[in-house]
Amino acid sequence: MSNNRAIVLGANQYGKAENRLVRIYRENARHEIRDVTVSTALRGDFADAHLHGDQSKVLPTDTQKNTAYAFAKEHGLRAIEEFALTLARHFVDDVEPVRGARIAVDEFAWERVPVGGEGHDHTWVRRGPEVRSTVVDVSDGGTEVVSGLRDLVLLKSTGSEFHGFLKDRYTTLPETDDRIMATALVAQWRYSGVEVDWDKTWADARRILLEKFATVHSLALQQTLWEMGRGVLEAHPEIAEITLQAPNKHHFTVDLSPFGLENPNEVFYAADRPYGLIEATVTRG
Amino acid sequence: MSNNRAIVLGANQYGKAENRLVRIYRENARHEIRDVTVSTALRGDFADAHLHGDQSKVLPTDTQKNTAYAFAKEHGLRAIEEFALTLARHFVDDVEPVRGARIAVDEFAWERVPVGGEGHDHTWVRRGPEVRSTVVDVSDGGTEVVSGLRDLVLLKSTGSEFHGFLKDRYTTLPETDDRIMATALVAQWRYSGVEVDWDKTWADARRILLEKFATVHSLALQQTLWEMGRGVLEAHPEIAEITLQAPNKHHFTVDLSPFGLENPNEVFYAADRPYGLIEATVTRG
Amino acid sequence: MSNNRAIVLGANQYGKAENRLVRIYRENARHEIRDVTVSTALRGDFADAHLHGDQSKVLPTDTQKNTAYAFAKEHGLRAIEEFALTLARHFVDDVEPVRGARIAVDEFAWERVPVGGEGHDHTWVRRGPEVRSTVVDVSDGGTEVVSGLRDLVLLKSTGSEFHGFLKDRYTTLPETDDRIMATALVAQWRYSGVEVDWDKTWADARRILLEKFATVHSLALQQTLWEMGRGVLEAHPEIAEITLQAPNKHHFTVDLSPFGLENPNEVFYAADRPYGLIEATVTRG
Amino acid sequence: MSNNRAIVLGANQYGKAENRLVRIYRENARHEIRDVTVSTALRGDFADAHLHGDQSKVLPTDTQKNTAYAFAKEHGLRAIEEFALTLARHFVDDVEPVRGARIAVDEFAWERVPVGGEGHDHTWVRRGPEVRSTVVDVSDGGTEVVSGLRDLVLLKSTGSEFHGFLKDRYTTLPETDDRIMATALVAQWRYSGVEVDWDKTWADARRILLEKFATVHSLALQQTLWEMGRGVLEAHPEIAEITLQAPNKHHFTVDLSPFGLENPNEVFYAADRPYGLIEATVTRG
Repeated sequence: MSNNRAIVLGANQYGKAENRLVRIYRENARHEIRDVTVSTALRGDFADAHLHGDQSKVLPTDTQKNTAYAFAKEHGLRAIEEFALTLARHFVDDVEPVRGARIAVDEFAWERVPVGGEGHDHTWVRRGPEVRSTVVDVSDGGTEVVSGLRDLVLLKSTGSEFHGFLKDRYTTLPETDDRIMATALVAQWRYSGVEVDWDKTWADARRILLEKFATVHSLALQQTLWEMGRGVLEAHPEIAEITLQAPNKHHFTVDLSPFGLENPNEVFYAADRPYGLIEATVTRG
Repeated sequence: MSNNRAIVLGANQYGKAENRLVRIYRENARHEIRDVTVSTALRGDFADAHLHGDQSKVLPTDTQKNTAYAFAKEHGLRAIEEFALTLARHFVDDVEPVRGARIAVDEFAWERVPVGGEGHDHTWVRRGPEVRSTVVDVSDGGTEVVSGLRDLVLLKSTGSEFHGFLKDRYTTLPETDDRIMATALVAQWRYSGVEVDWDKTWADARRILLEKFATVHSLALQQTLWEMGRGVLEAHPEIAEITLQAPNKHHFTVDLSPFGLENPNEVFYAADRPYGLIEATVTRG
Repeated sequence: MSNNRAIVLGANQYGKAENRLVRIYRENARHEIRDVTVSTALRGDFADAHLHGDQSKVLPTDTQKNTAYAFAKEHGLRAIEEFALTLARHFVDDVEPVRGARIAVDEFAWERVPVGGEGHDHTWVRRGPEVRSTVVDVSDGGTEVVSGLRDLVLLKSTGSEFHGFLKDRYTTLPETDDRIMATALVAQWRYSGVEVDWDKTWADARRILLEKFATVHSLALQQTLWEMGRGVLEAHPEIAEITLQAPNKHHFTVDLSPFGLENPNEVFYAADRPYGLIEATVTRG
Repeated sequence: MSNNRAIVLGANQYGKAENRLVRIYRENARHEIRDVTVSTALRGDFADAHLHGDQSKVLPTDTQKNTAYAFAKEHGLRAIEEFALTLARHFVDDVEPVRGARIAVDEFAWERVPVGGEGHDHTWVRRGPEVRSTVVDVSDGGTEVVSGLRDLVLLKSTGSEFHGFLKDRYTTLPETDDRIMATALVAQWRYSGVEVDWDKTWADARRILLEKFATVHSLALQQTLWEMGRGVLEAHPEIAEITLQAPNKHHFTVDLSPFGLENPNEVFYAADRPYGLIEATVTRG
């Protein structure tokens, strides 16, 4: 029985979450900006801290924060994957008790404010709500880079059907051959290595996801996700696998017949909750 | 003394808040989209409902919701100001007990997904986090239209100073002649009438706000707001007044000297709270 | 025409918003806690800052922040109204260019963690989500204290009707004599003076609001609000006026008849949006 | 190389997320309430839906929603674990293509409104922000129940130290033998079986977590988590393992010395971000 077994410490990690960091490059009049949130987490033999409160192997989370800010100056901050790799390797290589490091970075997009038709040198307006993300894990077991995006809000006003589905006692949904399909996409893809042009690959994967969402005539959100994932893997051998999570943000056609009005898919009620949630991984066999 | 006076009903209103409404125009293959949140509030002699629970003069909030959706079909939904005016006038003119109506509409921006260099016919990606807004009030006292935007997140990496300020016993802030200036702007402007090209004026006011934020060399956020407001009023006689609310989203230069590093305004900590909050109205004398 | 009139600076204020401040009293082993968010805003002749960027009359928002933290030590922080009054009077009395100050304080409730049936001396668990609030305004025009609460989430599962309402072309709502009534109450009451036992009056006003919500058999949310406001004013002559804002958080009875099941007000779908929004002031005639 | 391998569908699931469901028991005048959010997710052979858009094996997420609401009537909704198990078993046993079901339920706590010293029969006020949670997974591989809580916000104003930690080039943190320790706890424990008094065990695990947080003199948050987890496992043989995630919500002692004031841990700035994040599992060896 479970209660005869000793109680022991299992998996554990600790770090500093959500360090808000803005890096400006100002070598010349046309500045560059990188706006990120960095979270660090370290693994190792920290049993003494848990069992006895002995901190002698524990690098404070405050130090981890300092390191992130210092590295943005010492090593620069361009592609978030490169920054995260540098930080992770530092913790594992240079801090003796650390056996593994997991660095998560979110990046927020800015675009130059247009002034007289040109982007301004040092003024930006936030694009969004989309976030670019990466999670880098470095340990004896190897290095893993998983990049992606979230809060990419998409909507198509036609080209989406849903019918022929399984029915049981609790099924009341009518079938449809024309509906709005909308989502706030989360995509995360795992690279097979680290010899990657991070910014370029990210931008192209995003382009493919958008184009497939637009151009695939959809019989189900599942089908659209599959085609989006397949499109990314076909174009990018450096990507081993992609996972997509897509809320089906329901837009219901409002029944206007009580008011003597027709509504041929023109006026919709956009619901908050509940929402469908479709999740799929596309990988290499 | 106040407790000898009768207790009476004061100002009151009621309505349906945050109706999420999406209007698709699909007369031809190239669809159009308007994505809005509509809130209605009605005023009138509703004392019987409060004092006696008598609902005979109360048009249910559910009916108000229905009306918003029906009007999106009957009258269309293009410029949010026009839609709000139509809805407000209906309540005041057609529903007997209603003496005043206040309609608030937020609009969320979408842009066409690029496919092969062209915007797709019926697929969009959300721009954001910026929101376009209007509040229309119609009553015997007249018609008021206040439009604007919020969550317009702006940042400039130089061209902003702050010094020469008042000091007292509690002042520790160092003066600076070069800092990041960042905000999430709220702007609301009141029109002097309703003969306005709503979409065009809104877009041009936004353009001016952005350009002034970028090009004014700022000695204080107050000064930038004044110039932004003045710029809008100078260009648009149809705007009577503008109010700007600007959080000063602090970006602190991280002290890297303990690590032997200089930080000439390159690495910043972006703070959440507290933030400065500067509010100003620019009007006509 | 409006465009022939000079463009001038209108109303303006500035301050530091959302200073998160926790005050611990530890004179003896049984600690006390006050957990608040303080926002300050100052008014005065700040035209030079706007028009010319001249900060010589501008006490930095950073100094305002420092003052709030220093005052929590110098003057203590017990009732939030007292703290806000002290802070507001300081800015108006001691900082020469300041003509008016508006201090808003939110307080978050904690309760002692029970250990062996007793509340622990120095460990608390957050109650919530309810927030106690005050806004104090001090100027030549006088002193105003408006206190209240928000996010007080209430629900009654019977004792609420809604029928006999006005109907028009867009009305489809069925009448009901038994429904769930739920809200997230915002209440704000204005005191007629400052000689008030702030903590005691606040607690009693809250008690009355809760009891009236529970015990009034409701023919409409309007009626409930009126009775809640009237109850507070009847019991508290030191309160001049109260404003209540109550979202009608709809709970819809789910139609289970397609599954051969009855649903006599037992299973509900709790909707997020839209929601009714009822607002009323109860005052003294 | 990865690009020579076939692209295939990997793990996938789909369901309806965040169904807001309120269940009232009204057999007698003293009503009972259960307020929950239910999310369902189904696994099985859904490759045809992804690859070909064939929905013939896909039970719509709308049907899953209907089932949740219907089951709250047919089978009742008391302990969330029991409800989730019933729902999960239904999908796996009764819907042919379904091989696995994962049901997540969050429960929001209400307490009766006190009226004249007694809890009211049918009126409640939300406690919070704490959420009780469960995730039940049923498949051929067995049945797993993981229950817990989140957003349990705790603070102790003394009895917490942090010193003797590892230092490197980036360490600037001073050591302390007295600080505020605060967190918003997430706890999730896995049961070894399903013969459990769900409500009673949950309440007692929560009690232990609170008591240990209060009474353990802490040399580090790690140590507190270990003792909390150990306490739960020692008292509850029916719990196999517990995972705790605890943000270290930093409360910084404000330096008041520029104002001639001492601050012996009385006035704190409560920071939003970054925060430490400590995660640990306590298990049986």
